[in-house]
Amino acid sequence: MSTPLTILVVGATGDLARRKLFPALFACYARGHLPTDVRFVGVARTSLTDTAFRSKLADGLKCEELENGACSLAAGEFLRRCHYRRCEYDSIGDFGAADAWLTALEGGARANRVIYLAVPPFVFGPAAQAMSRSGFLPRGCTTEPWTRLVVEKPFGRDRSSYDALQCVLTDICDECQTFRIDHYLGKEVVQNLLVLRFANAIFEPLWCRKHIHHVHITWGETQGVAGRAGYFDQYGIIRDVMQNHLMQILSLVAMEPPVRLEADAIRDAKVAVLRQIQALARNDLVVGQYTAGSTSGGRGYCAEEGVPPDSCTPTYAAAVFLVDSPRWQGVPFLVSAGKGLQCNQTEVRIHFRDAISLFDAALADLPCGTSGNELLIRVQPDEKLALQIVSKMPGVRMMLGVTELDLSYREKYAGVRIADAYESLLLDVVRGDRSLFMRSDELETAWDLFTPVLQQLEQQKIHPEPYTFGSSGPAAVHELAARFGIPDGQGGLAG
Amino acid sequence: MSTPLTILVVGATGDLARRKLFPALFACYARGHLPTDVRFVGVARTSLTDTAFRSKLADGLKCEELENGACSLAAGEFLRRCHYRRCEYDSIGDFGAADAWLTALEGGARANRVIYLAVPPFVFGPAAQAMSRSGFLPRGCTTEPWTRLVVEKPFGRDRSSYDALQCVLTDICDECQTFRIDHYLGKEVVQNLLVLRFANAIFEPLWCRKHIHHVHITWGETQGVAGRAGYFDQYGIIRDVMQNHLMQILSLVAMEPPVRLEADAIRDAKVAVLRQIQALARNDLVVGQYTAGSTSGGRGYCAEEGVPPDSCTPTYAAAVFLVDSPRWQGVPFLVSAGKGLQCNQTEVRIHFRDAISLFDAALADLPCGTSGNELLIRVQPDEKLALQIVSKMPGVRMMLGVTELDLSYREKYAGVRIADAYESLLLDVVRGDRSLFMRSDELETAWDLFTPVLQQLEQQKIHPEPYTFGSSGPAAVHELAARFGIPDGQGGLAG
Repeated sequence: MSTPLTILVVGATGDLARRKLFPALFACYARGHLPTDVRFVGVARTSLTDTAFRSKLADGLKCEELENGACSLAAGEFLRRCHYRRCEYDSIGDFGAADAWLTALEGGARANRVIYLAVPPFVFGPAAQAMSRSGFLPRGCTTEPWTRLVVEKPFGRDRSSYDALQCVLTDICDECQTFRIDHYLGKEVVQNLLVLRFANAIFEPLWCRKHIHHVHITWGETQGVAGRAGYFDQYGIIRDVMQNHLMQILSLVAMEPPVRLEADAIRDAKVAVLRQIQALARNDLVVGQYTAGSTSGGRGYCAEEGVPPDSCTPTYAAAVFLVDSPRWQGVPFLVSAGKGLQCNQTEVRIHFRDAISLFDAALADLPCGTSGNELLIRVQPDEKLALQIVSKMPGVRMMLGVTELDLSYREKYAGVRIADAYESLLLDVVRGDRSLFMRSDELETAWDLFTPVLQQLEQQKIHPEPYTFGSSGPAAVHELAARFGIPDGQGGLAG
Repeated sequence: MSTPLTILVVGATGDLARRKLFPALFACYARGHLPTDVRFVGVARTSLTDTAFRSKLADGLKCEELENGACSLAAGEFLRRCHYRRCEYDSIGDFGAADAWLTALEGGARANRVIYLAVPPFVFGPAAQAMSRSGFLPRGCTTEPWTRLVVEKPFGRDRSSYDALQCVLTDICDECQTFRIDHYLGKEVVQNLLVLRFANAIFEPLWCRKHIHHVHITWGETQGVAGRAGYFDQYGIIRDVMQNHLMQILSLVAMEPPVRLEADAIRDAKVAVLRQIQALARNDLVVGQYTAGSTSGGRGYCAEEGVPPDSCTPTYAAAVFLVDSPRWQGVPFLVSAGKGLQCNQTEVRIHFRDAISLFDAALADLPCGTSGNELLIRVQPDEKLALQIVSKMPGVRMMLGVTELDLSYREKYAGVRIADAYESLLLDVVRGDRSLFMRSDELETAWDLFTPVLQQLEQQKIHPEPYTFGSSGPAAVHELAARFGIPDGQGGLAG
């Protein structure tokens, strides 16, 4: 990787840039993952000197396993490579001038460029067009120096607004230079999903309707929407988390083996499984909204600053999907996501069918209706794999119990730093590996699953079921689960 | 369990009684697992008073999790219930008198009696006959008070000597009152084998030739034969460990699901699998004998006290068995056992076939020829279950590695005492549960597997391959394994 490289963040004064992107870039830089001749450029509407920009960034740079001395040395080097340029997002002139300025900074010849578009949805179109028309973002991706564009969610609000956004993208750049990021795909354990499934001979034979009873994919956050209410109220939990992050995870769990381990083959397999799912029916969806809780700071959603008092925006959703394929027919995928819940946790639970009934239930110290076998894949916060098994409890009598064969990343990889998802993904952009980025048809298909029910919720102004801030979510999720044969106390459902 | 109980050990001054049986009886007693009206009686040829006998036992009594005060209280109570009676093993008169003495001790009416025959092989027949003819051991087992007989290995030296021994047994008692003990069946993890296989829905679909490449059952001891050389030289490692303990473990690993979870159904399934194995061919057996090692105390086997200098007795053996059944056709079971090895370890490794080759070998940090998936079941010394999997190593590049989902008993059941095998088994005798005891046809079949090759070794005075005390055993085991497609460094073979 000897060609010079520039990584630009458009929207460099925003939250994402400051909290995630520049710290991730620093981590990549400090660990030597980037070319020697690399620079980091921030672009936004605010007037800032390089010095002021650098001092804004400095706080967010963390070193973890590096020594203090090495850390401040690396941070100093990194900051000296950071530059800032003011641009109006819709100004062809500003981007044109920025391009000339940047080329000079790059030593007179254009470097490889990663442009990370971290701007609010309403400036996405104008900014993309201004970058393109000014020559700042040239189309094409075959030759060096290349220019690659990274775009972030929200990818529209439904199928038609996504199509409009995609229309802007295809107008300005080729698919091969477009990187649609879903940072959940960069998370360590999510990256491990295909390895677990296809580099182990023991899981694939079990990975089907004959052996799996149900799958639960769950996302929970203890926080409410404070600070992001203005954005969140326009989108809601289904668009914010479920349509993208959780459906991406679902497609990795449910997909057939890709024909090759290549970006397009993987994405073909992912989109194929999404296409085997019927659009979500209202009846198979529970929506909830948190109300004031007893814990401190837990005010009700409608009392949050920036939220209309009669908002019908869901802060919780649970849905059941059926994948109509020979592998999955009849296996419910329960997908749930909520804010203001009792725990911060993203995980996948593969729950297996019951064993043959050789062991008398009377012998077993098992919760009623539990088969006992479950593969837990915890994405965050404490990365973990665990296979729940039934085992003889130590003792002179034959008592069975449920226990775990487990791999806690914190214990097993003690001292090994788990990289932030953005680090992995930014490096993949630099390498040109699109395996972990979404292709347009994946997003289209995922929107098709949710668009009808989202429209129904909004047109009918359906009030979400209230649940107390800090609880396990609305009660109706238990009925939904039960309707698909998923007993309480299983699949991560709170009892 | 209100009927009075007497537990007798015939051969009470021997090593087994002192080191294992009385400590196990004490553990059962101190934990309240025995009837209130229980006594423990030692019988042997030595003249001893009750007091002298008790003081011999006192040292071996350990309490582990009991407090010091509670422990000495319990030990005092236990010892007061211990009695001793001198008997010549072949004397009908002595046993007759002992019976009358014992009945008086039991309060004038005969109690339920467990008779544990812990005598050397050459007095087994005379002692059994004297006990029977004197009325000390009445035949039958349906009514209380019952009398049950526990017998220990050695169960003969080959098929014909076993048949002779069995002839003595059938002559004096019914099968239903006979408990042939193999203490490996009482070990915590061995007891868990059927639970793992049949109370978990995830293992049975994988438990066959389609998914399992080979199975390795291995037993290793760092000690030589010091102190037991006189006995050992007559038997050798194949008879001492392999024909009984390891073939019992093999039958639990390889058996079909029993039709019910009952003693005879389990033993039917075990014997069925042993009958599907061909008698061991000379060519599929490696025998070894340790020579002087560099570690202290590691003198050569033939230099041990009590061993003839030209002894051909093997202290190591490795054999490959094929189970001719639809489930196992073509899957080698490598069974190895040795003394004077580099580690003390008994374990079962179920090694699975390779995964589909989606992940490029270049990506993988895997030892050549390793599929990566292995289920480890460690019987001793540190009980453990572990499922070896291939997983993405944490980091920003896709590197695969082998890691473990594991359950270490010491960690998971911290503070829970793992009972000694004899405790479980003695309680099973008292309960009348024969699931973990061997039926005669199991031993017959196991002897049939080894008798021809044992005779060949002895008749041809085949010299075992020498291996250094403290090493991993003779080199020829690698050739044997390779001939069956088992690569080096796998299945617990030392590299």
